[in-house]
Amino acid sequence: MKIAILSPIAWRTPPRLYGPWEQVASNIAEGLVAKGLDVTLFATGDSVTGGKLEYTCEKPYGENSAVDVKVEECLHISHLFERAGEFDIIHNHYDFLPLTYSKLVKTPVLTTIHGFSSPLIVPVYKKYNSNSHYVSISNSNRHPELNYMATVYNGINSAEFSFVEKAKDYLLFFGRIHPEKGTREAIEVAKRCGRKLIIAGLVQDADYFNKHILPFIDDKHVVYVGNCGPAQRNELLGKAAALLHLISFEEPFGLSVAEAMCCGTPVIAFDRGSMPELIQHEQTGFVVKDEEEAVASVAQLSTINRAACREWAVKMFSKEKMTNAYLNLYEQILKA
Amino acid sequence: MKIAILSPIAWRTPPRLYGPWEQVASNIAEGLVAKGLDVTLFATGDSVTGGKLEYTCEKPYGENSAVDVKVEECLHISHLFERAGEFDIIHNHYDFLPLTYSKLVKTPVLTTIHGFSSPLIVPVYKKYNSNSHYVSISNSNRHPELNYMATVYNGINSAEFSFVEKAKDYLLFFGRIHPEKGTREAIEVAKRCGRKLIIAGLVQDADYFNKHILPFIDDKHVVYVGNCGPAQRNELLGKAAALLHLISFEEPFGLSVAEAMCCGTPVIAFDRGSMPELIQHEQTGFVVKDEEEAVASVAQLSTINRAACREWAVKMFSKEKMTNAYLNLYEQILKA
Repeated sequence: MKIAILSPIAWRTPPRLYGPWEQVASNIAEGLVAKGLDVTLFATGDSVTGGKLEYTCEKPYGENSAVDVKVEECLHISHLFERAGEFDIIHNHYDFLPLTYSKLVKTPVLTTIHGFSSPLIVPVYKKYNSNSHYVSISNSNRHPELNYMATVYNGINSAEFSFVEKAKDYLLFFGRIHPEKGTREAIEVAKRCGRKLIIAGLVQDADYFNKHILPFIDDKHVVYVGNCGPAQRNELLGKAAALLHLISFEEPFGLSVAEAMCCGTPVIAFDRGSMPELIQHEQTGFVVKDEEEAVASVAQLSTINRAACREWAVKMFSKEKMTNAYLNLYEQILKA
Repeated sequence: MKIAILSPIAWRTPPRLYGPWEQVASNIAEGLVAKGLDVTLFATGDSVTGGKLEYTCEKPYGENSAVDVKVEECLHISHLFERAGEFDIIHNHYDFLPLTYSKLVKTPVLTTIHGFSSPLIVPVYKKYNSNSHYVSISNSNRHPELNYMATVYNGINSAEFSFVEKAKDYLLFFGRIHPEKGTREAIEVAKRCGRKLIIAGLVQDADYFNKHILPFIDDKHVVYVGNCGPAQRNELLGKAAALLHLISFEEPFGLSVAEAMCCGTPVIAFDRGSMPELIQHEQTGFVVKDEEEAVASVAQLSTINRAACREWAVKMFSKEKMTNAYLNLYEQILKA
């Protein structure tokens, strides 16, 4: 089976630092390569894959403000679709734009919907609803007007996340610094518990960072360590007493939640989006309704068995499980 | 011959007020309809054509800030390309994005390049250089690295522009209020000549308008009449002593320049872009190098024969001439 994986080009595949869609596209590509499949990854020119790499865009546009994003993306997408005949299946991780090329080629296109950035993009998914193949990354993220083949949870490379039996005392925020990710709420909860908070992630909303986060950073109780790559991520996630994931939006998945548990670290999350699917309440973390409950959960952390967190993550969110699920879907599509 | 015309959707086709690309697409579509050809216009849902209208986008996105432009444009463009097989030729007025769909269909695509909004978009034109058909709207606008089939000057509907033999005294600025269009320079030249200036056009750069234009508007010497539709445009252009077109960019064409001359009104323009191709110096206006020369030209206006302006515009920039030129190109492409 010849498989084309269309990755975004905002970041390298796999990302050096932030880049969840690129990370998942990479995990699928490398998972398929490991199974001996013929994989061509369409990504940025600096990407790394065990399969074949195809690119039109040398460097990620997230690292280069001198490019026109629309130009970069239409050249990238059309490069794949113009070669569609060489592949048995196209696996799209590039949101809605590739769908509008999909009816012009014979090769079937499976689209992993990584989330809806706005309700305004739904009309494109609706247009291609009947002749495309959609996969949701959590049951919670399904749009009621779309048809889905399956939900396939994002899978992570468990070899990149070391199990830590005995954690340190600090709480961790790991993700984009943005109001919807709850950085401010994490600071508040840590303060109320008298615990140290480490913050790691890309500053996506500079105003929010300057107004609501920066004033609390004292390098002692609240520490900001920047946007982290894989090694530092493994270290920070593994040694945390808990990951605080106090989101205020319907998050489709949340890679850091799976990654934390993979290290044995429980997650305290607000009950939004996919959180109840990702976390086993009182087993691998706490799914809570407000800061009050989050503070109470920190006091309960000793009741969590860190080995159970690891076991759950490996069972539910492994790269291998995800790869097998997608391979099964490709086969279903090709049989039909 | 079955012809699909792909118009932009920023504005209605033809535009109610501003919208030069939509205006030209409309003039071609209606010119072809008048010749009895089978024309399908892909434009906004409120567009008006004597041919068949196809649309996905009800209202222009220029009039509706609640839409996602990327969504609207990819649905619009793919709607045409998914029906490409119904047409003998596709005539693209929608810039570079449609090119990236063009290799996926068998129907040839002719693209009128209405200008390069940035050097960053040139790579798309270069990619499709060898298997597409490009038309420039002036010789001056040709990019040295692209192949062109022809230059076809934009054509206007001379019935919409009445010849005025004896003009009034005022000078006219007609176009987008933007630094590159020279609104401020027009005020300066009018002041130095002691002449009244009427300004008409869409405020595209609000900062510029507020800082450099608004302070001079006194409803006596400098009058701003807003963004005008066809009737007011005809009136304003026809009765002007001259159009001041003191641009500071390489303008690919300049519809108002042709329209003014079509009313018999000479144009005083800076020597940039297509101006020397559009204006016969000292015959239908003055192509000048600075404000000094522009002021001197105002004193020379009595030497211009307004009937000669009309004659030149009708000869060079008529809808019929443009339509015949494009029809000839369609035929060349279909024969090849």
